[in-house]
Amino acid sequence: MTDYEHILVETEPDTVRITMNRAARRNSLSEDHLAELLDAVVAAGASEATGIVLAGAGPVFSAGHDFGDVAARDYLGVRELLALCTELMHTIQSVPQVVIARVHGLATAAGCQLVASCDLAVAAESAGFALPGGKGGWFCHTPAVPVARSIGRKRLMEMVLTGDTVPASVALEWGLVNQVVPDAELDPAVDALLARATRGSRAAKALGKQTIYAQLDRPEADAYAIALEVMAAASQTPGAREGMAAFLEKRKPEWPD
Amino acid sequence: MTDYEHILVETEPDTVRITMNRAARRNSLSEDHLAELLDAVVAAGASEATGIVLAGAGPVFSAGHDFGDVAARDYLGVRELLALCTELMHTIQSVPQVVIARVHGLATAAGCQLVASCDLAVAAESAGFALPGGKGGWFCHTPAVPVARSIGRKRLMEMVLTGDTVPASVALEWGLVNQVVPDAELDPAVDALLARATRGSRAAKALGKQTIYAQLDRPEADAYAIALEVMAAASQTPGAREGMAAFLEKRKPEWPD
Amino acid sequence: MTDYEHILVETEPDTVRITMNRAARRNSLSEDHLAELLDAVVAAGASEATGIVLAGAGPVFSAGHDFGDVAARDYLGVRELLALCTELMHTIQSVPQVVIARVHGLATAAGCQLVASCDLAVAAESAGFALPGGKGGWFCHTPAVPVARSIGRKRLMEMVLTGDTVPASVALEWGLVNQVVPDAELDPAVDALLARATRGSRAAKALGKQTIYAQLDRPEADAYAIALEVMAAASQTPGAREGMAAFLEKRKPEWPD
Repeated sequence: MTDYEHILVETEPDTVRITMNRAARRNSLSEDHLAELLDAVVAAGASEATGIVLAGAGPVFSAGHDFGDVAARDYLGVRELLALCTELMHTIQSVPQVVIARVHGLATAAGCQLVASCDLAVAAESAGFALPGGKGGWFCHTPAVPVARSIGRKRLMEMVLTGDTVPASVALEWGLVNQVVPDAELDPAVDALLARATRGSRAAKALGKQTIYAQLDRPEADAYAIALEVMAAASQTPGAREGMAAFLEKRKPEWPD
Repeated sequence: MTDYEHILVETEPDTVRITMNRAARRNSLSEDHLAELLDAVVAAGASEATGIVLAGAGPVFSAGHDFGDVAARDYLGVRELLALCTELMHTIQSVPQVVIARVHGLATAAGCQLVASCDLAVAAESAGFALPGGKGGWFCHTPAVPVARSIGRKRLMEMVLTGDTVPASVALEWGLVNQVVPDAELDPAVDALLARATRGSRAAKALGKQTIYAQLDRPEADAYAIALEVMAAASQTPGAREGMAAFLEKRKPEWPD
Repeated sequence: MTDYEHILVETEPDTVRITMNRAARRNSLSEDHLAELLDAVVAAGASEATGIVLAGAGPVFSAGHDFGDVAARDYLGVRELLALCTELMHTIQSVPQVVIARVHGLATAAGCQLVASCDLAVAAESAGFALPGGKGGWFCHTPAVPVARSIGRKRLMEMVLTGDTVPASVALEWGLVNQVVPDAELDPAVDALLARATRGSRAAKALGKQTIYAQLDRPEADAYAIALEVMAAASQTPGAREGMAAFLEKRKPEWPD
């Protein structure tokens, strides 16, 4: 484990737990904090783990960008910060592990973007989600990118224009999170969903999640052009071979990966 | 206020209310009616207002195109009419104001398209939504464009193939409108949502809504390429500067725009 | 009717019913089965029928690809199989008829893809939907293409990563199917929805469904570029002319097509 200042990283055999640990700053995403998160996700991505849990310590999940780290920057300085933030979001989607957000308290602006960018998300009943930048003078342009791709257009416009907090139950209905559970059951619910999501061939799921993100938001024929070639090639992998053989021989598979 | 024949325009300090006023023709969208709506939206867009309410007088919101104005046209004549209609939809999305639809009665065909094209929409409980063109011989090709981008694909196909009216409660569940309220509470609900949606920096929200429409329906990396540059540049605007300063100094912001 | 081995085809005046009839193999989609389905859909597409019902005989709708027909193939052999499968999905969307899935039991992997690819779908209460490839070693890359375009991103990731079965009630909430009915009412519900979806001008709906699939998943301006030209041209068809004339003359239309 690297010597991090803003985050905690716990490495279990199958799961890496990354916890934003800047509670006094409501886990806001300063450049240093973002850099540590990116470093930790890259390291977890290179590990043998099958799952990554992204959580926040303290009263909220994350308040988004740290204005103390933005206000003094010029255009190029802010651009650098946002490029780092965007790289973190992209990396979450490109590591082979299943990445699940454990959301409690508020997930605001880039904090909400983190939730939308994770493969899966479980929220506590008391959690809330907001894109308040427009209300505050600096519109949530980049957070709106993955949120728009999880919920409907009218709902997105309501979030970005009003800036109001959407309760967990509504976020579930809109498809921003996969599950909402009583606060006391958040950890076991995260672990249970992650266990279900990481069963089977690690290689198959690693290839699968990346192909999904590659084919989303494209005309259907373009998406098939990607998915068909990957799926044909994937049929020759040891995992696919073993899975089909086990199915046909009515035995449990032994995953080679 | 221009001398309009088909619409009413009320200008308040913050809000421009545009009411389709062709009740005898069920607010159908003849070329002249469309031209007046476009003119009024452009004029409101150039005003200091922060919000635009689009409503309909009489028994319905709008019945869509006026067949009396379509039936005699040749291909180029219809094309001209549809191009004007499409320009109106695009203009609603490109003016700096928040545009909210106040929907009562039926919103049919291009009338339903208007609802889908507004940034936000509040419907009365008794309202209904339909894309009946296919049933009637002239398929709702262009209305289906923004409706498809608000609701799911199977739901869209049900609307366009059956032509049946979707009640307001279902439209809410599908994400076509933001709120459904008892008929008597429609006006206060519209005003309340618009007030929440127009708080804060006018410039930030103006830039925000246009960037949202620019990044929607694109592969995520393409959307980030747009949103990241805009957000970096937007950090240097007076509104963003003031918003961040006020936040850090724990005071109320004074919006320069 | 051709001499099919794996499917049943019943031709009624308005409706062609295609039933997967490989119950002993859970209607799995071997190359021969896929080829027969494609042949039957193409033939139905060239017929005068206005609707196509796709159903499955036996305990499930379809279990997806037949591993017995995949396991021994090399890359090019699997690619050929998947290309045939993709051609079937595309053909369902390009024939002039309304294609409706009648779903009972399980719709798994490419079986779920079939449901997502049909224009409409009605499911029995006891039906279930799953994309279990990732769990089984061969990720559901191509099935995820149309499913992603029917439900939200987080929901898709949950389906493909967990592989667990989504009950019909949840599939309805997510927009994967149009209706869920008690098992005993499945056939009349399918027929009732199909009847509503095939009223009116056959030509208008045929053009409509294809234009919808052409404009979906594109930036809105690109979608309008397609829909506007088609709609202008469509205004000159006999069906559109008759529909408008009948409306203006307050009489029932007599469809010329």
